[in-house]
Amino acid sequence: MPTIKVKGMTCQHCVAAVTRALEAIDGIANVTVDLDAGTATYDPVAPVDSDVIRKAIEDAGYELG
Amino acid sequence: MPTIKVKGMTCQHCVAAVTRALEAIDGIANVTVDLDAGTATYDPVAPVDSDVIRKAIEDAGYELG
Repeated sequence: MPTIKVKGMTCQHCVAAVTRALEAIDGIANVTVDLDAGTATYDPVAPVDSDVIRKAIEDAGYELG
Repeated sequence: MPTIKVKGMTCQHCVAAVTRALEAIDGIANVTVDLDAGTATYDPVAPVDSDVIRKAIEDAGYELG
């Protein structure tokens, strides 16, 4: 399972926003966000361009680390 | 306009959650939340029991200061 760093999350609302943003991407499933670690882990069910992930994170108001 | 202290807000999602929680109360209108100051200000359009405000804040996951 890939784990990415997500900067800027401060609370459970942020966790929910990042989870939603990632789960909306085709090819990503079962997203788990760790607020304390500042990470998100997911099942790569199909190939996803890393730029798509970066854009989803940024559109949600966070930064890919 | 009354101003109350709200503890635990960390981001704009928190601001939105507290704003929604207060605006759902009969008698409270025009809520403005200041994240940096940790305060919420509102128009008291009708009398509101302070316990109702406290419960709304706490149900949203924050604490009345």
